[in-house]
Amino acid sequence: MKALIFDGTLQLTEIPKPDPPPGEALVLVTTAGICNTDVEITRGYMNFRGVPGHEFVGKVEAADDSELVGARVVGEINAGCDQCSWCAQGMERHCPNRTVLGIAGRDGAFAEYLGLPVKNLVKVPHSLSDEKAVFTEPLAAAMEILEQVKIEPSHRVLVLGDGKLGQLVAMVLRLTGCDLVLVGKHRDKLELFARGGGSVLLLDELTASKERFDIVVEASGSPSGWNLAVSRVKPRGILVLKSTYHGALSFNPAPLVINEITVVGSRCGRFGPALRVLEAGLVDPTVLIAAVFPFDQAEEAFRRSQERGALKVLLKM
Amino acid sequence: MKALIFDGTLQLTEIPKPDPPPGEALVLVTTAGICNTDVEITRGYMNFRGVPGHEFVGKVEAADDSELVGARVVGEINAGCDQCSWCAQGMERHCPNRTVLGIAGRDGAFAEYLGLPVKNLVKVPHSLSDEKAVFTEPLAAAMEILEQVKIEPSHRVLVLGDGKLGQLVAMVLRLTGCDLVLVGKHRDKLELFARGGGSVLLLDELTASKERFDIVVEASGSPSGWNLAVSRVKPRGILVLKSTYHGALSFNPAPLVINEITVVGSRCGRFGPALRVLEAGLVDPTVLIAAVFPFDQAEEAFRRSQERGALKVLLKM
Repeated sequence: MKALIFDGTLQLTEIPKPDPPPGEALVLVTTAGICNTDVEITRGYMNFRGVPGHEFVGKVEAADDSELVGARVVGEINAGCDQCSWCAQGMERHCPNRTVLGIAGRDGAFAEYLGLPVKNLVKVPHSLSDEKAVFTEPLAAAMEILEQVKIEPSHRVLVLGDGKLGQLVAMVLRLTGCDLVLVGKHRDKLELFARGGGSVLLLDELTASKERFDIVVEASGSPSGWNLAVSRVKPRGILVLKSTYHGALSFNPAPLVINEITVVGSRCGRFGPALRVLEAGLVDPTVLIAAVFPFDQAEEAFRRSQERGALKVLLKM
Repeated sequence: MKALIFDGTLQLTEIPKPDPPPGEALVLVTTAGICNTDVEITRGYMNFRGVPGHEFVGKVEAADDSELVGARVVGEINAGCDQCSWCAQGMERHCPNRTVLGIAGRDGAFAEYLGLPVKNLVKVPHSLSDEKAVFTEPLAAAMEILEQVKIEPSHRVLVLGDGKLGQLVAMVLRLTGCDLVLVGKHRDKLELFARGGGSVLLLDELTASKERFDIVVEASGSPSGWNLAVSRVKPRGILVLKSTYHGALSFNPAPLVINEITVVGSRCGRFGPALRVLEAGLVDPTVLIAAVFPFDQAEEAFRRSQERGALKVLLKM
């Protein structure tokens, strides 16, 4: 089958089709999304080698459970060991022995086929297009914040980063009724959120104000976002750290202590709530689609997704 | 009056006695404690210039409220503006316009006299010796953790740092019934906590194990403590950051995000609960007293408190 492989460089090549073990399904990938984490992987994040890609919609081609064959599915990306206390709690995403689709120990979705445990697969409601359903994974990651932090309607919330993740975070946090502003560097991207009725500010405009917020979400994907975020949280406020990138940053921990700030690291979320929110039409992530490429042009799609200002680039297999 | 002044270097000298404005009391300092924050101040922390010192017991010499004159008191170190929303909530310790005794904008306790708002003063119960009462401030700071984080009896808790702050934190968190271990580099200091029935480990012994904890408190005062702490928190666990030091540290934020760790910055606490715990004999901080110096030898006392392995050094005025 065709697959986009990262082994230090990225190339579209032929590799054997996966041969999933018992308990796992073979899924024909129909649509995949390129995430910033995929870009960070090509910069060394997680030292991953293999097929990246973890946002997908597909069709089950083979599974022990014949009822599932032919179903249109999305898939939770963390595959647990099923033996540990984390897996016993339904928290496979923190299993110490987990593999993660296209990120750690498991080939991902930038290929004609992928393998995942049957229990990771979730059927996609008929009413949802592939273009919406492919956002299930990043939307679930955005909604994870709501599982970790109590956001109240009276809270003033700052989301830093007008990229894909920041926009999804802003879309879902806004559903709480909180007073939220999305801040970024790109007038055209902010316009997308503003068109949906959201409140936005250019980074320069934020810099000109002195406002501090009850809750700040760092989703800029940039190491400089951390220090900006720390400086904009009220004393006793919450900073949600959503960005992952490869490398270290330098910071002065004193303001965290002096202002008694709480920093909450936030990663993957549950697919069920994300699909509910998509199906109910509470958010429409398709406004974030910048381009759709045929899989034959996957290398070019990847380049495109790394261009400054690019939003979601999709691959159609 | 005699005072220990920091203006780039530290020296015992004569300065005018404070002349407190209306609403503030003049306090004759009888006992003061040297804290690591005082040492950090001499390294540039907070850019403070003036009289350091914020742990004290004293006698009210003059106050608008004559009932207070002659009382033995301790004092909350944050003096708010009384005008802002933080002060209105009784959270003067986060007032943006606050002064902080011996730390920011207000001369401190390493002097014969100090000035503090009358509302900051708390009478010391007769049953408490000066040697116990002088620990009210750092004990309140340790107990602040209990105001911020729900520690359950079933939690496994790691306290990093066998210095003054780490020991006080371990003493109070242990009262929750949690399964706590104090880790440090100094066998003799750990022995103090062990003698009180606490569980201890040398840093090397911790390094040899792979254990992760529900809650880790970083109280080592060392930048290296941060990375060790991050590596020892369970996924979804809590890291309490208690150390303040001057300068930046380099860290990779990815583990916070991947393991969804919550970092809680923690600073000053309320004096009432600390005095209750002292009076009830639930903790005895006097085991931490390494030396008591007359105030004439304040410079030497300060040097002593900076020696490796030194615990609490007190000054008697």
